[in-house]
Amino acid sequence: MEKKEFVKEITDIDKNFPQWYTDIVLKAELADYTDVKGFIAIRPYGYEIWENIQKYVDEKFKKHGVKNISMPILIPEKLLNKEKQHVEGFAPEVAWVTIGGGEELEERLCVRPTSETIFSTMYSKWLNSWRDLPFLYNQWCNVLRWEKETRPFLRSREFLWQEGHTIHETEKEAKDFTLDMLDVYADVVENLLAIPVLKGKKTEKEKFAGAESTYTIETLMHDGRALQGGTSHYLGQNFTKPFDIKFQNRKGEQEYAYQTSWGISTRLIGAVIMAHGDNRGLKLPPLVAPIQAVIVPIAQQKEGVLDEAYKLKNRLNERIRIKLDDRDNYSVGYKFNEWEMKGVPIRIEIGPKDIEKREAILVRRDTSEKIQVKLEDIETKIDEMLKNIQVNMFNICKKRMEEKTTIATNIEELKKNLEENQGFVKSMWCGNQECEDKVKEITGAPSRCIPFEQEHLSDVCVCCGRPAKTMIVWGRQY
Amino acid sequence: MEKKEFVKEITDIDKNFPQWYTDIVLKAELADYTDVKGFIAIRPYGYEIWENIQKYVDEKFKKHGVKNISMPILIPEKLLNKEKQHVEGFAPEVAWVTIGGGEELEERLCVRPTSETIFSTMYSKWLNSWRDLPFLYNQWCNVLRWEKETRPFLRSREFLWQEGHTIHETEKEAKDFTLDMLDVYADVVENLLAIPVLKGKKTEKEKFAGAESTYTIETLMHDGRALQGGTSHYLGQNFTKPFDIKFQNRKGEQEYAYQTSWGISTRLIGAVIMAHGDNRGLKLPPLVAPIQAVIVPIAQQKEGVLDEAYKLKNRLNERIRIKLDDRDNYSVGYKFNEWEMKGVPIRIEIGPKDIEKREAILVRRDTSEKIQVKLEDIETKIDEMLKNIQVNMFNICKKRMEEKTTIATNIEELKKNLEENQGFVKSMWCGNQECEDKVKEITGAPSRCIPFEQEHLSDVCVCCGRPAKTMIVWGRQY
Repeated sequence: MEKKEFVKEITDIDKNFPQWYTDIVLKAELADYTDVKGFIAIRPYGYEIWENIQKYVDEKFKKHGVKNISMPILIPEKLLNKEKQHVEGFAPEVAWVTIGGGEELEERLCVRPTSETIFSTMYSKWLNSWRDLPFLYNQWCNVLRWEKETRPFLRSREFLWQEGHTIHETEKEAKDFTLDMLDVYADVVENLLAIPVLKGKKTEKEKFAGAESTYTIETLMHDGRALQGGTSHYLGQNFTKPFDIKFQNRKGEQEYAYQTSWGISTRLIGAVIMAHGDNRGLKLPPLVAPIQAVIVPIAQQKEGVLDEAYKLKNRLNERIRIKLDDRDNYSVGYKFNEWEMKGVPIRIEIGPKDIEKREAILVRRDTSEKIQVKLEDIETKIDEMLKNIQVNMFNICKKRMEEKTTIATNIEELKKNLEENQGFVKSMWCGNQECEDKVKEITGAPSRCIPFEQEHLSDVCVCCGRPAKTMIVWGRQY
Repeated sequence: MEKKEFVKEITDIDKNFPQWYTDIVLKAELADYTDVKGFIAIRPYGYEIWENIQKYVDEKFKKHGVKNISMPILIPEKLLNKEKQHVEGFAPEVAWVTIGGGEELEERLCVRPTSETIFSTMYSKWLNSWRDLPFLYNQWCNVLRWEKETRPFLRSREFLWQEGHTIHETEKEAKDFTLDMLDVYADVVENLLAIPVLKGKKTEKEKFAGAESTYTIETLMHDGRALQGGTSHYLGQNFTKPFDIKFQNRKGEQEYAYQTSWGISTRLIGAVIMAHGDNRGLKLPPLVAPIQAVIVPIAQQKEGVLDEAYKLKNRLNERIRIKLDDRDNYSVGYKFNEWEMKGVPIRIEIGPKDIEKREAILVRRDTSEKIQVKLEDIETKIDEMLKNIQVNMFNICKKRMEEKTTIATNIEELKKNLEENQGFVKSMWCGNQECEDKVKEITGAPSRCIPFEQEHLSDVCVCCGRPAKTMIVWGRQY
């Protein structure tokens, strides 16, 4: 009964996925709405997921020689205007500071939507010789984009992210670095968040405003909609020329540097929710879960039970992220449901009978499998189970992605695929934006990317029937 | 010769301390000015100091049960206006966003100068019962205060900080927590940054806008000016009443919660520079230094030298933050000066003769002491030396603080002390703000704090001669 009561509050995942998502965000206390439209408060349980992502990624960046810095949050209007495509892309969705210290400002200042312009300005000041290169800098910060439709984590007017900005001596080095960072993103999403990715290049239409080329990792959610997990841009000299980022090269000549930028954001928390969750709630991959195992004592009022539970907690404390739920005003059933809803990978049950046998029960969140373990073996068993859960969660997503990836050779088929089995649709494409626009108009699916792993599906474009240049993947998106 | 050339670029510390400070910030590449007045770019070498502070403090917070969260950067005007003293204190120096997504906003939004109002709004939503308490939340973020006079790290329009906000069931618990956090601040400043602190309570005049009481750690810089290192506020019910942060207490009645807030910022980087630096540049305490030891190979063009240097670097890499300066376009003398200027605690010299003897030379940045060590012992010797430097740097500051702390029994003496030996001046005080104002007017020194460690210096107030209530400390400030 209690279980039903609790679960009732969450919308059925297959009946109304967007509402299920909102329910989870709020009920699992990941985030909450605030008094400012489109701005969320990220609560401790959500923020800890972000901290785990940060820690993992930051270490990878540092291994690539990337250093963290901090740039101003405000950008003068004239700086934003320096790169034409960039300003066209971002100007409509920025927020402007017009008053400071009680006075109207002479020049209005934009709250950064991204910081290419400000990094470029400083790079121009700091760069002299090829010996100074590369500059491999990153910042962890907040940015603002005044979106019309907002949804917690997925699309909010403020979000947290990291933005890496590098400049290099040669085009090759910059291009390689762009792809290295894409690999870091694929690594964190696949290995930490247990979500398989599709790697590829964005089309001209979908690329970052001001980039030569944009690379992406695309993920697929429970309902078959795509979510862009992270992007890495090769900017060429598009910014280094207008911002005058020059250096003396090895021949003694002045040359413009080659630039990259790349970012991932708190959107990834949304991806974790939507890729793994089910009707019992959130399901967190062990490596990123704020709580990896929760101890729920059974009949905790009985002598010795809480003592054993505390002992167990202290034993496991250094090894994993463990919590003991010793609340005396909730029933065991309520606790089971709550921690399932919060997606904790393992539940550890320990009661009078278990203690007598020097045992405990481990319950997996992903499969509901229950095993009885000897207390003396519990560390080994938990380690093993956490590893298995991580792998299993990835495999389940991988299988779903495969099942929801279809092939279309004409536009009717493309539409039908999306209606019957929403997901990624592979097709051939002539490379013209007209066809890309038309596919989106008819099917509601923009292009996701031109995958690195190309296949030859047919000779002609899915849309116009003219000779095809490349394989492309389509998908409706978050 | 080379040494002189290099040092020449830095202003003499005792002739013009403010200019020396600016020189160090720029030359040591800690930060740089940007195109937006009062906004700085924190460069990798400065940001790594901040990261080391963050890591140290965040761990301490977490041991106290504090959890990190993220609140919106924008605050609606009506929220800011809810606590009267708070808005009076902050409204004059805020920046306002008035346009978003191309449209004039209906209500202007303030870029947070601090987040009591926004935390309070959310706490009101999240709190129900005494069982929910305490809320111990913190955020690492940027804030904006539109200062008129700005100086890198010390006073900029944007700065990075952490702001902790907690609510508690009882007044006592909240007051205790306020002081616990002050202890964390004293710990990081004394033990990580090697700067002794004076702990005390701010006067009514100097307390935080909206607080019941503000506690502070005060530090003393090279020139005898004070710098407030961090503050912790007991807010009582000043916010919980207007923001309606109520809970059902153990008796079943509705009660307003008791609140605290506390923060430290990137100002502490300024404190490190100004407390420890000398005419050769920056001097970093080993525990917070981005580079703890730098290897400068001697005659690196000679066979085997660079090989040995790399070997040494790899050996030490896991143990300490080590750098090898293998640049071939700078002389050894230039490198010595540059790393001294950047404040690296230990220089390791290794040349052909050293290698022959299986030795290296260690040079201390703080005392210039040189010692020859066997390569086989180098780990032990470096560990020892780093510890000694950390202790010695603290002791030197401690001694200076003692020497620059004087006693005054009347206002002439107070003024004379500040002119002849600028620093902290202890005196007795009647407790009236009139006297506090008058002392500041005459001497240029505001009150620093009412120290926790009280002494009885005389029976009368330093200013008005009426009966004294307490010992107070004065000092000119940054």
